[in-house]
Amino acid sequence: MAIVKPLNYEEADPRARAVFDDIKATRGVRDVNNFWKVLAHDPATLERIWSDLKRVMAPGALDPLTKEMIYVAVSIANGCEYCTASHTGAARAKGMSEAMLAELVAVVGMACQTNALAQAYRPEIDPQFHAK
Amino acid sequence: MAIVKPLNYEEADPRARAVFDDIKATRGVRDVNNFWKVLAHDPATLERIWSDLKRVMAPGALDPLTKEMIYVAVSIANGCEYCTASHTGAARAKGMSEAMLAELVAVVGMACQTNALAQAYRPEIDPQFHAK
Amino acid sequence: MAIVKPLNYEEADPRARAVFDDIKATRGVRDVNNFWKVLAHDPATLERIWSDLKRVMAPGALDPLTKEMIYVAVSIANGCEYCTASHTGAARAKGMSEAMLAELVAVVGMACQTNALAQAYRPEIDPQFHAK
Amino acid sequence: MAIVKPLNYEEADPRARAVFDDIKATRGVRDVNNFWKVLAHDPATLERIWSDLKRVMAPGALDPLTKEMIYVAVSIANGCEYCTASHTGAARAKGMSEAMLAELVAVVGMACQTNALAQAYRPEIDPQFHAK
Amino acid sequence: MAIVKPLNYEEADPRARAVFDDIKATRGVRDVNNFWKVLAHDPATLERIWSDLKRVMAPGALDPLTKEMIYVAVSIANGCEYCTASHTGAARAKGMSEAMLAELVAVVGMACQTNALAQAYRPEIDPQFHAK
Amino acid sequence: MAIVKPLNYEEADPRARAVFDDIKATRGVRDVNNFWKVLAHDPATLERIWSDLKRVMAPGALDPLTKEMIYVAVSIANGCEYCTASHTGAARAKGMSEAMLAELVAVVGMACQTNALAQAYRPEIDPQFHAK
Repeated sequence: MAIVKPLNYEEADPRARAVFDDIKATRGVRDVNNFWKVLAHDPATLERIWSDLKRVMAPGALDPLTKEMIYVAVSIANGCEYCTASHTGAARAKGMSEAMLAELVAVVGMACQTNALAQAYRPEIDPQFHAK
Repeated sequence: MAIVKPLNYEEADPRARAVFDDIKATRGVRDVNNFWKVLAHDPATLERIWSDLKRVMAPGALDPLTKEMIYVAVSIANGCEYCTASHTGAARAKGMSEAMLAELVAVVGMACQTNALAQAYRPEIDPQFHAK
Repeated sequence: MAIVKPLNYEEADPRARAVFDDIKATRGVRDVNNFWKVLAHDPATLERIWSDLKRVMAPGALDPLTKEMIYVAVSIANGCEYCTASHTGAARAKGMSEAMLAELVAVVGMACQTNALAQAYRPEIDPQFHAK
Repeated sequence: MAIVKPLNYEEADPRARAVFDDIKATRGVRDVNNFWKVLAHDPATLERIWSDLKRVMAPGALDPLTKEMIYVAVSIANGCEYCTASHTGAARAKGMSEAMLAELVAVVGMACQTNALAQAYRPEIDPQFHAK
Repeated sequence: MAIVKPLNYEEADPRARAVFDDIKATRGVRDVNNFWKVLAHDPATLERIWSDLKRVMAPGALDPLTKEMIYVAVSIANGCEYCTASHTGAARAKGMSEAMLAELVAVVGMACQTNALAQAYRPEIDPQFHAK
Repeated sequence: MAIVKPLNYEEADPRARAVFDDIKATRGVRDVNNFWKVLAHDPATLERIWSDLKRVMAPGALDPLTKEMIYVAVSIANGCEYCTASHTGAARAKGMSEAMLAELVAVVGMACQTNALAQAYRPEIDPQFHAK
């Protein structure tokens, strides 16, 4: 249940439309996802998020698929259903197989388990892990 | 501040020592981390977690470094300082450069931001992301 | 999907009805929200939460709208869809414009991003922030 | 690092002192924990939290030890170090053995793992779990 | 909205079917929950999680109902709707009354509140709570 | 325990120094906080976060103090000690009194409590809260 109505291209203001156009051109898609349509109520945020996302997810020391899988993992850990679904879709589009997804999810589950054990017992951080 | 005292090899019971021995042999290290030393109070859990971790982190459809970076990302998202420090250490040992760490952290931050935006506005999940 | 059935006025016990009556009188509404109807299974908790909420949200050093916006922000950060929707409604009723909501959400997103960066890199707390 | 200084009995105002006295009498302790000393800056909240806590943790359909263990479990899941430490202490004082603590922590870890798997795959809730 | 399709017995591979059979025999049910049907895409994880769950939830120093209630409490704290619903169902089947559920939920709510107060004010951990 | 060493002005690269200079000029401070010094390892992220923060926190439909208090509230809810301490400092510098801080924290605690109750009972969202 959205707390604001998604805006279609026709309803969005010119600044939002320019972002929509860039998303469509960059991704080669016919329409933008609902995430962008609800952000269109706030063109300044829409512009900033899209611009930041392009920079952060660009190929660099990590390849785009690895970045996308990290995005999925964080979205699962944060319990965000929308981002889990949409970034899983994006990761599949970039080449993530179902076997890769299964292993990703297993790692997330395992990390959440040992995070809880460490948050419970609170072991001291071992000296070799301290920044030098 | 640990809520239980870490147990050294000499203080641990035989089942825990066997796990310590396997960790040291598998990782080629002289001693185990504090995480394992606090778990040693509960040998059944120590055995289970170590055995599960070996299986989940083994090379498969994803390589061990990618798995380790996903582990770091989840630990950051969950705010677990111990696991963030120890798995960052493990990822560096498996080849993660400082540039890769910086990009990983930037992706985690970006994901946490857009997760919050999606949790706020709650856009409907786009039909193309539904499982077929 | 509620794990208990919401109770209407007619189904609720007298203690719960008294709280319902006070909520309706205080807020000038014809019926209470589903949150209160599920809490009605536990009249002691219903009484306590309503009484605490009135005290915490009363005007004081902070005005009621600022308090309501803080409530919305925390509900987003905790990923609580029900509270995000209902307290956004309450904040709008107290005068929050759509522009204010958009800025609130942008701040929450930004905070979640820098929280993640700080949880990742764990900088030491600067001395000027220590309580004196 | 506290963001406010803990207040000792001598520094606290009369309303806070009255709560300190009641905590000490109820628990049979010579001094109150730091949690109460930081809350003493806000006597209204101090009174409300202590009064609510006494009611919520009183014996009822659940015994006080079970309630205290649930408190510990939630504090671990929320990553709250202070509450994990203090409520583990309280649970031990009410009879929780080290074996019970170990099983409690193992359940929390397991729940965090399967929570993550469910948040990833998002299975539909089975009809038998719907409220009737 | 599941990100993978739940697999029925007929669609699942032999390793997954063997787990399904064991779940049905152990629990005396005619079909497994959707959680297991989505995990069936990854038979190795399905086997591991089921085997771990049986061990962790077995009677020990804590009885199965107490463990199940801790599971519910953690699932609520983590905001996992599926696990909250399914483990509430399991706890009811093991004897949790509606009055016990109400008290459990009240404790979870209270813990989340004081966790937040402690995360805000960050009192120092009292010396008596340090592990000896 | 930082997982990277904070970089002082002398150690930072020219892009990072330019950001440090702008932070110092904008805030009228002699040195930047440790948060910026750890981010300095990644000048691209440092530039982006600082630039975004200036925009998001600028006066608009909400005044800077309200924004800062929302930032504190989210940081508490996320359990981020560094951001809680540093943004509490920033909010005090912008005029937040100790009485305002106490009310802010009480609202956060109350929201975390009712978020948990709603995540437990999962009431249906009332029709009046749906976006029109």
